[in-house]
Amino acid sequence: MDLGVCYYPEHWPETRWAEDARLMRETGLTRVRIGEFAWSRIEPEPGKFDWGWLDRVVDTLHAAGLGIIMGTPTATPPKWVVDAMPDMVALDRNGRPRGFGSRRHYCFSHAGYRAQAARITRAVAERYDQHPGIVSWQTDNEYGCHDTVQSFSPAARDAFRLWLAERYGTVADLNEAWGNVFWSMEYRSFDEVELPNLTVTEANPAHWLAFRRFSSDQVVSFNKAQVDILRECSPGRDITHNAMGFYTGYDHHDLAADLDVLGWDSYPLGFLEMFRFTEEQKRRFAHSGHPDIAAFHHDLYRGCAKDGRWSVLEQQPGPVNWARHNPAPLPGMVRLWTLEAYAHGAELVSYFRWRQFPKAQEQMHAGLLRPDATPAPALAEARAAADDLASLEGGAPVKQSAVVFSYAAEWMTQIQPQGEGKSALWAAFHCYSALRRLGLNVDIVHPDAPLDGYALVVVPCLPIVSDTLVANLEAFDGQVVIGPRSGSRDMDFGIPPTLAPDKLEALVGGRVVLSESWRPGLAIEGDGWLASGWFDHVEGAAAPELTGRCGRVASWQHGKVRYAACWPEGSYIDLVVARAAYDAGLPHDPLADHVRHRVRGDRRFVFDYESAQVTIQQA
Amino acid sequence: MDLGVCYYPEHWPETRWAEDARLMRETGLTRVRIGEFAWSRIEPEPGKFDWGWLDRVVDTLHAAGLGIIMGTPTATPPKWVVDAMPDMVALDRNGRPRGFGSRRHYCFSHAGYRAQAARITRAVAERYDQHPGIVSWQTDNEYGCHDTVQSFSPAARDAFRLWLAERYGTVADLNEAWGNVFWSMEYRSFDEVELPNLTVTEANPAHWLAFRRFSSDQVVSFNKAQVDILRECSPGRDITHNAMGFYTGYDHHDLAADLDVLGWDSYPLGFLEMFRFTEEQKRRFAHSGHPDIAAFHHDLYRGCAKDGRWSVLEQQPGPVNWARHNPAPLPGMVRLWTLEAYAHGAELVSYFRWRQFPKAQEQMHAGLLRPDATPAPALAEARAAADDLASLEGGAPVKQSAVVFSYAAEWMTQIQPQGEGKSALWAAFHCYSALRRLGLNVDIVHPDAPLDGYALVVVPCLPIVSDTLVANLEAFDGQVVIGPRSGSRDMDFGIPPTLAPDKLEALVGGRVVLSESWRPGLAIEGDGWLASGWFDHVEGAAAPELTGRCGRVASWQHGKVRYAACWPEGSYIDLVVARAAYDAGLPHDPLADHVRHRVRGDRRFVFDYESAQVTIQQA
Amino acid sequence: MDLGVCYYPEHWPETRWAEDARLMRETGLTRVRIGEFAWSRIEPEPGKFDWGWLDRVVDTLHAAGLGIIMGTPTATPPKWVVDAMPDMVALDRNGRPRGFGSRRHYCFSHAGYRAQAARITRAVAERYDQHPGIVSWQTDNEYGCHDTVQSFSPAARDAFRLWLAERYGTVADLNEAWGNVFWSMEYRSFDEVELPNLTVTEANPAHWLAFRRFSSDQVVSFNKAQVDILRECSPGRDITHNAMGFYTGYDHHDLAADLDVLGWDSYPLGFLEMFRFTEEQKRRFAHSGHPDIAAFHHDLYRGCAKDGRWSVLEQQPGPVNWARHNPAPLPGMVRLWTLEAYAHGAELVSYFRWRQFPKAQEQMHAGLLRPDATPAPALAEARAAADDLASLEGGAPVKQSAVVFSYAAEWMTQIQPQGEGKSALWAAFHCYSALRRLGLNVDIVHPDAPLDGYALVVVPCLPIVSDTLVANLEAFDGQVVIGPRSGSRDMDFGIPPTLAPDKLEALVGGRVVLSESWRPGLAIEGDGWLASGWFDHVEGAAAPELTGRCGRVASWQHGKVRYAACWPEGSYIDLVVARAAYDAGLPHDPLADHVRHRVRGDRRFVFDYESAQVTIQQA
Repeated sequence: MDLGVCYYPEHWPETRWAEDARLMRETGLTRVRIGEFAWSRIEPEPGKFDWGWLDRVVDTLHAAGLGIIMGTPTATPPKWVVDAMPDMVALDRNGRPRGFGSRRHYCFSHAGYRAQAARITRAVAERYDQHPGIVSWQTDNEYGCHDTVQSFSPAARDAFRLWLAERYGTVADLNEAWGNVFWSMEYRSFDEVELPNLTVTEANPAHWLAFRRFSSDQVVSFNKAQVDILRECSPGRDITHNAMGFYTGYDHHDLAADLDVLGWDSYPLGFLEMFRFTEEQKRRFAHSGHPDIAAFHHDLYRGCAKDGRWSVLEQQPGPVNWARHNPAPLPGMVRLWTLEAYAHGAELVSYFRWRQFPKAQEQMHAGLLRPDATPAPALAEARAAADDLASLEGGAPVKQSAVVFSYAAEWMTQIQPQGEGKSALWAAFHCYSALRRLGLNVDIVHPDAPLDGYALVVVPCLPIVSDTLVANLEAFDGQVVIGPRSGSRDMDFGIPPTLAPDKLEALVGGRVVLSESWRPGLAIEGDGWLASGWFDHVEGAAAPELTGRCGRVASWQHGKVRYAACWPEGSYIDLVVARAAYDAGLPHDPLADHVRHRVRGDRRFVFDYESAQVTIQQA
Repeated sequence: MDLGVCYYPEHWPETRWAEDARLMRETGLTRVRIGEFAWSRIEPEPGKFDWGWLDRVVDTLHAAGLGIIMGTPTATPPKWVVDAMPDMVALDRNGRPRGFGSRRHYCFSHAGYRAQAARITRAVAERYDQHPGIVSWQTDNEYGCHDTVQSFSPAARDAFRLWLAERYGTVADLNEAWGNVFWSMEYRSFDEVELPNLTVTEANPAHWLAFRRFSSDQVVSFNKAQVDILRECSPGRDITHNAMGFYTGYDHHDLAADLDVLGWDSYPLGFLEMFRFTEEQKRRFAHSGHPDIAAFHHDLYRGCAKDGRWSVLEQQPGPVNWARHNPAPLPGMVRLWTLEAYAHGAELVSYFRWRQFPKAQEQMHAGLLRPDATPAPALAEARAAADDLASLEGGAPVKQSAVVFSYAAEWMTQIQPQGEGKSALWAAFHCYSALRRLGLNVDIVHPDAPLDGYALVVVPCLPIVSDTLVANLEAFDGQVVIGPRSGSRDMDFGIPPTLAPDKLEALVGGRVVLSESWRPGLAIEGDGWLASGWFDHVEGAAAPELTGRCGRVASWQHGKVRYAACWPEGSYIDLVVARAAYDAGLPHDPLADHVRHRVRGDRRFVFDYESAQVTIQQA
Repeated sequence: MDLGVCYYPEHWPETRWAEDARLMRETGLTRVRIGEFAWSRIEPEPGKFDWGWLDRVVDTLHAAGLGIIMGTPTATPPKWVVDAMPDMVALDRNGRPRGFGSRRHYCFSHAGYRAQAARITRAVAERYDQHPGIVSWQTDNEYGCHDTVQSFSPAARDAFRLWLAERYGTVADLNEAWGNVFWSMEYRSFDEVELPNLTVTEANPAHWLAFRRFSSDQVVSFNKAQVDILRECSPGRDITHNAMGFYTGYDHHDLAADLDVLGWDSYPLGFLEMFRFTEEQKRRFAHSGHPDIAAFHHDLYRGCAKDGRWSVLEQQPGPVNWARHNPAPLPGMVRLWTLEAYAHGAELVSYFRWRQFPKAQEQMHAGLLRPDATPAPALAEARAAADDLASLEGGAPVKQSAVVFSYAAEWMTQIQPQGEGKSALWAAFHCYSALRRLGLNVDIVHPDAPLDGYALVVVPCLPIVSDTLVANLEAFDGQVVIGPRSGSRDMDFGIPPTLAPDKLEALVGGRVVLSESWRPGLAIEGDGWLASGWFDHVEGAAAPELTGRCGRVASWQHGKVRYAACWPEGSYIDLVVARAAYDAGLPHDPLADHVRHRVRGDRRFVFDYESAQVTIQQA
């Protein structure tokens, strides 16, 4: 595994570049990621390029022995691009323009901006097409950051209508698929369709789902346009993009299909603070991150990546600037996170950023160097991690368990939670945690992924079930856990005529005849477990597995398949998963709650999130 | 009492209609409500009507022996209506259009839409004018749902100016009535008056009150236009409309004056979840609904209805889709709710809906049938309720106590709560609950309603007091409880020269010289009671009734009248009301907190919200 | 000290004026403040003035022996002013116009409104230029009330560009100062700069800081224009303006530089309810106000005022209408607040308002008279305070301790809190409280103020440190406490090359190499103290003073200087301040938590916020 760093030479005097490069190499770094926000320096005036400085940067870094990951600068078009076509910015859900002054101020559907993005991408790609220092290209930066995938602009509306016509053929078919007869929402032509925002009450969930799919497709095609140019101009280099944490605005399986390596940006402390963890977890793990945050994304994006190639393109090295509160990692955590990425199979961990920039939006974001160029604590940890890695020789992943996840599932549960906060992503996270607490290796896989080699598969919440998944599960000889809402919808958000779990009914041994969602405080209690949040009434041949004191059945068993009728979370899903692990012949005793394992090749990595220690054992 | 169901034949194949009708009759239903969202099927293109399908529906249902309640489809104008006049939609408080894509996308003040609504109403009314299957007409659907009464559009502004000119005559009179000299808000003509939104800080409360009255009047006149057409085209049928729960956007007394029967839509579980109940109540009654929710509205709308004729046009049959969490009712609750409506004097309970529709916004809303046409739990309960009703022979209402409520009171306390969350509707609800917990029959009456026959009258919070009410109370020989803010305002939101309670001063035996509102945690404590939220300083001849340990007087007594100086809620108002009941010779011992009674004729209905049981005793 | 009252003669019949004036005098009042909302009565039609009524008011009040404070009416332009130039209103952060219908509906940058404001100011000033009744002029009313300083209008944008050009000279210098290379935010001309709202994610903090400075400067120049007219037309009168509580929208040091006397509006109960106090404090002091609220502002505005001349232009006399909850003060509090203002050196306390107006937005705001003209409780307290004052002979302020505060510090911590809710104003308030609880006199001073005469100086949180402050602190021979973020920024929000505390490093004896912000629940615990919220890692010669059980150092000591590495709040800052007071030879034992002292001349005033008692002792 390589170590690298994100570097912004345009922030620093040219006289510093060689020293920075030398120090990077001395730290054990072999990769450097540059360029993705530098449009205003590459093309300071329309059509007038200034390549000199960037040429010298590339040569200097290459000369020092660093492999360069070069970004296309399309996430930050300069003001003159926007002023030339003010309607290129996205409109938010309330119809307000999302203007210049930070970043990502463009609508993915705007043809004019697409042309500008292609032009600058080609310019950069042609400039460094065969430079030996360039080892990879990165497209844009963090698609969707700051909630930028959805745009409610006229450009998006027009593109959406074309997309709908393409998908549905006739408007009658769209009306039928969406059930538009309800509330007289029937359209007479695709030109009557509006975007689903600013309706009096919520729009048709089918309308929203189509818009989410369309918005995702726009990202994928925007990216594909850059990929095509880069492949044409600079063949032989890997192409990557940096995904984010707990972000589902576009379908990462689709995006990754056009990339060689899927990267992601790992900020365990920031994510802990900003996402759905309990107050107690946020306090307890404030300086180390919840033990499953980084691993979950490693495994998720490995599962998304074509050929399983993935990396960490940004790794938190100290406090960040963007969370509600911004504590520092415990000494040892940066090294631990680095080795954890290795244990999960990363090709690269790249720290963000080399040196803290004293100005602008991220001035409070730590780097490996302080603003005054003295070492920040993470520099020594990166050096230590480089030493650790020198003695590790790789090794194949070990398959034990898999969690099935799709982006459409998350969109659908966001569009129609039915019970507040019940989302497929977090169902997956909780199931993943349950498996991890047993010390298991976990893969997070696409619904159509082969299941060979696993002993246990969990389908936490998957409204749309494909024939491939059904066939794979039927052929599968391990244990299966299926959670609520699975098989509850057709491709257009309709309830299937045979009700949930539809095609999974034979496997589950039952049909869901009624679904309830429950507020906090309502629960089914059993011995040592408490199930809550959701309750499916199941009828069929399956046998009750967990029955609460109230007489309600919280989980069902039918051969190799368990059906979780309550929301997969907490002590309840821990128990269901542990029982399935037991039946699968897997380890099933929980680890200490601050400890996690990962086996790669013949090594078992033991990560302790309380002491920030890593132990490497024989597996 | 009839039982009925809401039916959307346009959602289902024509081949199913006869079977549905047969099954309705078999279930004991005699009424079926149709048509209110079917505009796009009735008139798929401008001016091109398709009556065939609806003719066959009407004939099929009629042939099965069902009486039809036909809705005008004006709540869901098709897209082509909106596209012909895009300014017909309402603007929200922030000036954003509330567009097509769900329902109720119209501004009540838009002349163009009023013409369209009249046209489609006349078309439907003329088509089925004397069809023997039609027993009633319903106008539109749930006026105000999704907060749609107020519109801040140019059409509304222009209509508001005319309304003001009509009401005030001269702008000088308006300036004087509103106190516009304050902050130099004086207008020189009605054309200078804007709507009260988007002001720098809050607009004049008098301005808001006028706008609330105007907005209510627009609903009433919109409805009246349909009523006039229906009476002209289809005489001899009842005309109804379906009101909602805890909704006060328009004056239901005014609307009901133009209807024969006032209906309402009863969703006890959804309302519990979404409205101002404590977390503890929301958990405890999650599967049954707070014991006073349905009854409160039965009694409220009976009091609004002309001649007291009212019905439940929609009754929750299972989980709904629109609350934050959506649990299922306990087995027995659907039957209990049905009998409760009977006990309060309903003419009809109509379940919503016949069959769960697998698509669009309400796909998670239960029906009597599941989406696959198999029976949902409520079907058998409807059948059981039909059997119960067969053995009940009606009987006159029994008068014991009355709560006085006006919509203007609620508007005023919303406009100017003075203490967070202190509203007249909820004051009324808490007083109602206090009376109900004593096992009393309660009527909720208009301020000008006669008070004969009651032993106890509560006026929870009535800023504007009419001469009629004063005269009625003076003549009344029972006990009276009057709550804070009563008599505190004139017709234009001004404090009367004699201060509160103004015309009630002689009855109360005191004058309110100072009013405080208190944050949670501040209270007057006595033996077994705790008064909070509000505190009126009273001076006059009245005697202290409840004095706290701090020496403050929480309630006063003067002859037959008690004055509640604190917010009418909790143990405090329970005690004040129980003491008044005692003095009135009424039952005054509290029932178990999950039990409620209602006497109709010679029967006493005992409803248990814990076990979902109904017991019918001799009264 | 004078006592006065705010009076709106335009609300009452002319026949009442003389009686009101007589009663004011009888109450012991000598000043009356009028006119600031009366534009629509002074100029009911464009250019048509009606001076008669106001002439008679002025004569009547003067004849009664009252000195008049006359306000310019520019806070409430009549509707015809707005209709003549609809773009004069401010746009809010979301781009929505903030329209007519309440008050302060103008953008400070609108040239047309500036002309109107100058015109009406000149008209009033010329009318009463040398009237013997006029003792002072007040400009406008509560600049910034209802968040009106910032406007995002085209007028503001254009003015901002000019302001930037003036400040930075070249756009290259602006780009460099702001670090606009980051995210390609570089501008090619000042005309490319937009306002910092409606960006995709947060704008550059340097951009925001410039906009905050600009917005403040617009207030100052708007005010200056009126001051110039008033000085020209009516020389010899004091000019004042009324500032607000906990309000920092403009730089009050800058505004006060153009005024003779800085006034402020004191609403202790309303402020307690609406600002950042704990639930426990809000309950405990609901009827008296937190003991430091009024005093903090007295000392803050005395420090802002030119020559230290300040007054209370509005004093809460009973419940207000604008807080979430509005309780009444304890009997005695109005007198206590009045004497407290005296003890802190006020020239005037003016009660708001004379008589409660029964209509419009503030109808629930108490006065000295009730709406019916009978005395409200505060009238007798004003009378008692007048008697108290008659026996007090003034006396010089006594210097003990000082807190350093700048408005830019508050803007910067609002723009970039880094940890939720960590703001310089509240850091100052907590340090002030810590000093006050020791019974000390506290001054709140500008960063460049001389420090002679103090024994203890606290710099709670001052990102930008001037050379003057450094020199003053170096020369200072008392004790110093410096808090986090001090010296952490340059003038344009950049981190200085030598890191924090930059120029203070020699004094502090250390450098801050890393800053963390911590969520509630994370803390450093020691014996009897708990430090939280923020944690600076310090390296240097300073010695640890307070070290937690976890080994982290919460405060450092270096000669006379202590550095608080945690957020200055709670038991932690109380202890640090008490230790510094001890070293300074000042009293250092805490008073009872509901008691505060203030020494003026040879008198010690002891205020008890539990019993609402004032005791006056020999100092």
